[in-house]
Amino acid sequence: MTIHSSTTPESRLERGKRALDEIDGKAGQNVIDALAGIAPDFATYLFEFPFGDIYSRPGLALRDREIATIAALAAMGTAQPQLKVHIEAGLNVGLSREEITEILMQMAVYAGFPAALNGLFAAGEVFAARAAAEEGMTCG
Amino acid sequence: MTIHSSTTPESRLERGKRALDEIDGKAGQNVIDALAGIAPDFATYLFEFPFGDIYSRPGLALRDREIATIAALAAMGTAQPQLKVHIEAGLNVGLSREEITEILMQMAVYAGFPAALNGLFAAGEVFAARAAAEEGMTCG
Amino acid sequence: MTIHSSTTPESRLERGKRALDEIDGKAGQNVIDALAGIAPDFATYLFEFPFGDIYSRPGLALRDREIATIAALAAMGTAQPQLKVHIEAGLNVGLSREEITEILMQMAVYAGFPAALNGLFAAGEVFAARAAAEEGMTCG
Amino acid sequence: MTIHSSTTPESRLERGKRALDEIDGKAGQNVIDALAGIAPDFATYLFEFPFGDIYSRPGLALRDREIATIAALAAMGTAQPQLKVHIEAGLNVGLSREEITEILMQMAVYAGFPAALNGLFAAGEVFAARAAAEEGMTCG
Amino acid sequence: MTIHSSTTPESRLERGKRALDEIDGKAGQNVIDALAGIAPDFATYLFEFPFGDIYSRPGLALRDREIATIAALAAMGTAQPQLKVHIEAGLNVGLSREEITEILMQMAVYAGFPAALNGLFAAGEVFAARAAAEEGMTCG
Amino acid sequence: MTIHSSTTPESRLERGKRALDEIDGKAGQNVIDALAGIAPDFATYLFEFPFGDIYSRPGLALRDREIATIAALAAMGTAQPQLKVHIEAGLNVGLSREEITEILMQMAVYAGFPAALNGLFAAGEVFAARAAAEEGMTCG
Repeated sequence: MTIHSSTTPESRLERGKRALDEIDGKAGQNVIDALAGIAPDFATYLFEFPFGDIYSRPGLALRDREIATIAALAAMGTAQPQLKVHIEAGLNVGLSREEITEILMQMAVYAGFPAALNGLFAAGEVFAARAAAEEGMTCG
Repeated sequence: MTIHSSTTPESRLERGKRALDEIDGKAGQNVIDALAGIAPDFATYLFEFPFGDIYSRPGLALRDREIATIAALAAMGTAQPQLKVHIEAGLNVGLSREEITEILMQMAVYAGFPAALNGLFAAGEVFAARAAAEEGMTCG
Repeated sequence: MTIHSSTTPESRLERGKRALDEIDGKAGQNVIDALAGIAPDFATYLFEFPFGDIYSRPGLALRDREIATIAALAAMGTAQPQLKVHIEAGLNVGLSREEITEILMQMAVYAGFPAALNGLFAAGEVFAARAAAEEGMTCG
Repeated sequence: MTIHSSTTPESRLERGKRALDEIDGKAGQNVIDALAGIAPDFATYLFEFPFGDIYSRPGLALRDREIATIAALAAMGTAQPQLKVHIEAGLNVGLSREEITEILMQMAVYAGFPAALNGLFAAGEVFAARAAAEEGMTCG
Repeated sequence: MTIHSSTTPESRLERGKRALDEIDGKAGQNVIDALAGIAPDFATYLFEFPFGDIYSRPGLALRDREIATIAALAAMGTAQPQLKVHIEAGLNVGLSREEITEILMQMAVYAGFPAALNGLFAAGEVFAARAAAEEGMTCG
Repeated sequence: MTIHSSTTPESRLERGKRALDEIDGKAGQNVIDALAGIAPDFATYLFEFPFGDIYSRPGLALRDREIATIAALAAMGTAQPQLKVHIEAGLNVGLSREEITEILMQMAVYAGFPAALNGLFAAGEVFAARAAAEEGMTCG
């Protein structure tokens, strides 16, 4: 679960692409694809700064970074699509559904009950989609 | 670092007081004292719901809860006094200064550079005050 | 229109359930139902703190509490589903459609014209649904 | 406590000045004075739209309008100076200290505990300043 | 591209209607129409204060005013319908698609990447709808 | 007033330092200095992404970028220190005091009168400090 490459120097863009892929998976790629026709340079910045710079820093575990991101997005209440991407990302980097639910419930204290409720409903959708996908993989 | 009492039943208020004391320490008590002359019932609610209910739940470690709170308050940008209390609380429950700094820098991605800067400056004040207090204890 | 029970002691949960039912009616129950599969404990907290504790306090009339809630949610602009629930609740506890419209228009002053517009459009939907339901009851 | 002039037609500006004076008193005048050197036209707009148009409308009592304003400003958390002016205004148009305290505590539910705390501390300052002024009037 | 009428005195309402029509075009009229059944007086205020007063002031070009509005609405993140109206308005008063895209990307710095992303996706929808309409006019 | 270097390739960091110096001047340097003891890496990011990447892009004039930033920060209401830095920056890159005042007044429409007022008072402080400094230079 480390993002730092050890042997060869890697550009911010390459490192960011690798980090985004590891953390956000398909949901992250969908955002990049959606940007292609509108602002392709912004896709580059999104790889480089958040993922190539910040998420690739060694001082905080990816799991802890996703706790911070889920909390922040739920508290702000203005970024439901991104909150869903990061609930998915949290599961990808080792948070359990229970832990994510706890983070969202806790936001009632700091950002009010509506922020917590809207975060929990977003999590409900992500968990359900993931359960359906997992079932599909098992049954197919 | 567990908050759940095991032998005797404990009221929400008692459990909340114990959790607030463990997590926020003196900074939490200052908030309670400041409420005494304005809205003493609100001090009770503050013990009971955030600390007696939420922080006392077993599904997420206190250290992880403080990551979430620091991130949320820095991202919202409307609660500088509470952010300082929880930077202090983060140190109390096991976050390092480096980890707190990483959380705050990461908020640049989700809430913008000013939110991160204002959070980092708040942390700078808390760290300096704590270093001064620690030095006082050593030298005195 | 009082929520305080006079004869028997009542738990926060019971009192909250009664208050939520009186204030939010079916819309409140829908929220509780939606939480069942995601975070049932949060439904308990929602009964207990907002409704069992805060709305059940005697110092402010329910009608006045709904003025405050409608104003706050419209000004924040991050809680459209909850704003609709509380426009409905406002009607339930004695606010007229005209008064609710005035509250929302006033938010243009404090949170800007978009906040007021989005609040007014939410009210338009609630008023229309309610008119349709009332007509249904009359005609059926 | 009515703002509508009955006998002579009155301009928006005149009506707004009268309403601002009635509602906000000296605190409102301080804002107007502070604008004089920066943006005097904005003082005119402040008289005209919020006070000459909105607060002067008959569909909602001034007391109810101040409930809405206090709730909105406390929930937003970005307007502490204006919140203090309107806590003062609430007292001017008939809200009790207890009612204002209830409104602010209720904001914990919708905007989080920090918003409620910061609102309560603002109220504590306004109440103390007013108590000091009243004592001065009595003793002097 | 000037809004100030030179020969005859014009009421705020007339001036606002003319400005709204020039700036927002059909999208602005849709908002006014939607208000008709809910709060017709608010449509009047919307003509008068934002458009009759503010946008009609000579001290800042309409193009510059739309830069400010697009930036503010994207940064706030609570007014997607109004953001789309003003992306359209920006095109109407002389901003290029590239300039609007730059403004929205820049919001990543001040309000975070999600605010920029949601703004860019809104712009993508407006640009696509406009391209479709232009093609329709050419081919029809 | 162009930031793009024409002859030699320049790193993002160098370009960002040059842009920050041109745009924010001494106020920007103060922010960098304040970060030195808390999070020096964040100073690097601040040079690189906002200034080395975004402000250095050719698609929008610096003057227009500052309109967007002043509007966004005033509308958000959570970044008064940064708003002051960018009011100063706006003057540095060619906005007049009148234009900045117009931008801030316009925010009343989108973010409410308190946001506009707090922005105007921030501008008042910046204008006064600058007038004092200019007078000092003339008289000294």
